[in-house]
Amino acid sequence: MPPDRARPPVITFLSDYGLIDEFVGVCHAVIAQRCPGARVIDLTHAIPPQDVRAGAGILAAATPYLPGGVHLAVVDPGVGAAGGDQARRAVALRTVSEHHVLVGPDNGLLIPAAGRLGGVAEAVDIGDSRERLERVSATFHGRDIFAPVAAALAAGAMLADVGQPIAPDGLRRLDQPHALARDGALTTHVLRADTFGNLVLDARAEDLAELGLSPGEPLCIDHATRTHATRTHAARTHAARYARTFADVPPGELLLYEDAQWTLALAVNRGSAAALLGAARDDEVVIRRG
Amino acid sequence: MPPDRARPPVITFLSDYGLIDEFVGVCHAVIAQRCPGARVIDLTHAIPPQDVRAGAGILAAATPYLPGGVHLAVVDPGVGAAGGDQARRAVALRTVSEHHVLVGPDNGLLIPAAGRLGGVAEAVDIGDSRERLERVSATFHGRDIFAPVAAALAAGAMLADVGQPIAPDGLRRLDQPHALARDGALTTHVLRADTFGNLVLDARAEDLAELGLSPGEPLCIDHATRTHATRTHAARTHAARYARTFADVPPGELLLYEDAQWTLALAVNRGSAAALLGAARDDEVVIRRG
Amino acid sequence: MPPDRARPPVITFLSDYGLIDEFVGVCHAVIAQRCPGARVIDLTHAIPPQDVRAGAGILAAATPYLPGGVHLAVVDPGVGAAGGDQARRAVALRTVSEHHVLVGPDNGLLIPAAGRLGGVAEAVDIGDSRERLERVSATFHGRDIFAPVAAALAAGAMLADVGQPIAPDGLRRLDQPHALARDGALTTHVLRADTFGNLVLDARAEDLAELGLSPGEPLCIDHATRTHATRTHAARTHAARYARTFADVPPGELLLYEDAQWTLALAVNRGSAAALLGAARDDEVVIRRG
Repeated sequence: MPPDRARPPVITFLSDYGLIDEFVGVCHAVIAQRCPGARVIDLTHAIPPQDVRAGAGILAAATPYLPGGVHLAVVDPGVGAAGGDQARRAVALRTVSEHHVLVGPDNGLLIPAAGRLGGVAEAVDIGDSRERLERVSATFHGRDIFAPVAAALAAGAMLADVGQPIAPDGLRRLDQPHALARDGALTTHVLRADTFGNLVLDARAEDLAELGLSPGEPLCIDHATRTHATRTHAARTHAARYARTFADVPPGELLLYEDAQWTLALAVNRGSAAALLGAARDDEVVIRRG
Repeated sequence: MPPDRARPPVITFLSDYGLIDEFVGVCHAVIAQRCPGARVIDLTHAIPPQDVRAGAGILAAATPYLPGGVHLAVVDPGVGAAGGDQARRAVALRTVSEHHVLVGPDNGLLIPAAGRLGGVAEAVDIGDSRERLERVSATFHGRDIFAPVAAALAAGAMLADVGQPIAPDGLRRLDQPHALARDGALTTHVLRADTFGNLVLDARAEDLAELGLSPGEPLCIDHATRTHATRTHAARTHAARYARTFADVPPGELLLYEDAQWTLALAVNRGSAAALLGAARDDEVVIRRG
Repeated sequence: MPPDRARPPVITFLSDYGLIDEFVGVCHAVIAQRCPGARVIDLTHAIPPQDVRAGAGILAAATPYLPGGVHLAVVDPGVGAAGGDQARRAVALRTVSEHHVLVGPDNGLLIPAAGRLGGVAEAVDIGDSRERLERVSATFHGRDIFAPVAAALAAGAMLADVGQPIAPDGLRRLDQPHALARDGALTTHVLRADTFGNLVLDARAEDLAELGLSPGEPLCIDHATRTHATRTHAARTHAARYARTFADVPPGELLLYEDAQWTLALAVNRGSAAALLGAARDDEVVIRRG
């Protein structure tokens, strides 16, 4: 796949396999057999188990920093749930931005990253790829399908060599909310809380700029807990500041800032925004001038 | 050692060092000095501390997926226990299956993997290897002996260059039970429980096929707790199904299945077999038609 | 930087980023873009968060085992604390020992390692390096400044190419105590407790040899808790033995030994010296003949 012969082929690798078991190491071993010259970069293997949306978000956020190559991602709750191969397709996607191929399950995991790379130009189903290992287990498709196909692509195979063509618009997308600017307010959602209790939102600084809001301004934050059973929302309002860094507000106070992945996030200086708001994934956060 | 000059030499690396300390990184650094072109693949460094049998089982199960090369494994409770060099030998083993060399302590860790590779063709004691670092510590032989010897072998040294010949049949083997088929029943043992409570047994699907048992059939499982003090066994009988995947039985019910390492294991659909049976390592599990 | 063209350039990498987030993986990706042929060795990414002294100690202890190359280290509590670039300088240091360059924050982290490599021969401020990523975040300088500069140096750039010259004697040093031999006693300090409760001291076996103490001898250990508020010291005396290995003393007894990093440490055979002494970082430990 990578036509740039001057540099060794690159495979980046993201999963929820963790580093306790030997799963990641065995995938590396399979890759080394099929593409001995490949350079494998472990992005992270600590995606929360089976959390496809977290994996998709972290992969997409990393995309601008990735070299051209094959991007292997495995967060795959469908892998053995309903008896193996019928559960979900396994796919490889060539993006509009050249030199990038994504390999993984067809469950939405790869789509936000593909979007950052211009969208999907070509897609194949690799479930029955001739590059699969001879014996395919019910549950470890990372080793048996995804890693050997990624290695074949890194070694120079074309998508048509490793699978059956499928329509890009038939790929599964994630069912997730989207930020919306309307009537002077930006309606966002909590994507995840990080280990410090900072709440990562599905919006960017550009979205606030469109509303005429700039760093330094006071904000009103309406936080609505999303109760899945009833879909009712209990909203509470908090004062916050649109700040550049934590230290721009007094300890214990709420701020909205642009994090290192260029995403808007809520934080409390020397505290936890997740604890202060009692917020969780998918909760709605409405931002307006304070 | 690897005569295949087209690909970079490979060193796989398994240990119980963990990733909190810098031990693994320092071993990588030593290898990079001695064999700059080697590709090092970390299989896992999270073997339970000093659990030689767990390390041996995981290394052996990974063996079919490993490229030719040097396989460095360090789970080494004997390393400083009785004052250093006298405690146990350090060895390098060439296997009957070509292109594979195993390096590690002579405590049984390497033997099951060697068995999967056709057995040991040649063995050397590397405790006083000329490839050792100049200064050998009492406790960190991974850095001071095993890594530099593995690097020398990856760089092309012969076994005779790095140690003193020893008799393969004098190598220490693990004292562990073995599955036994007799009178229509398969007597197996619990090798370990994984993080989900699945109980990995020391038997394979082929063993059940020899008894005429096929996936789909009902089973009787006799579980006997092994009390180390008295060696008495308290046996209880459970109904189970020989299934392909978890979803083949109702939630909460026991199944026997072939896991992704091609080993038989007991599981409970959406539950924990370890908890249901109250089972632990070395416990006896007898499988018969239900 | 590395003039040795026969081997691929090496970048070693130590940080407190942990392996849960994708931070380390993204730094690897940035390096792969800028220096595709570099071999990156992860020393450890589990330095306790923001513990510059622990990072400095572990990097320095590993130094004798590192191949020539670029040593990237990021433990950087100053990175966004006071608004970004003003907080502390980012630097690259060429050492007197050839073929080694250190890259990281100017907060003392690199200085003990530089000392082991003969001291600093040349230093540059890389905060505004032309090798920085186009967009520099407030908090993730590992990705935006340190990794790309390290990659440029590994790819052959000179220090003068990547930053502005600064005086080596203006570099920040760690404010930490030093071992002192006087009147037949060696005054040392606790650098850290490891996961087993062993207390790593800031002294080496050579320091005791100068006092005429050899392994096997009985010792008196005065331990003084350092209370930061009042600077008063409450001293207690313990009997110990200067031993080679844990097993040289009965279970539960205190020993002083040379650890695998060639540093003196206090331990309890089958116990915890940290618990026995109630000791913590910076505590004073005075060693004399018993």
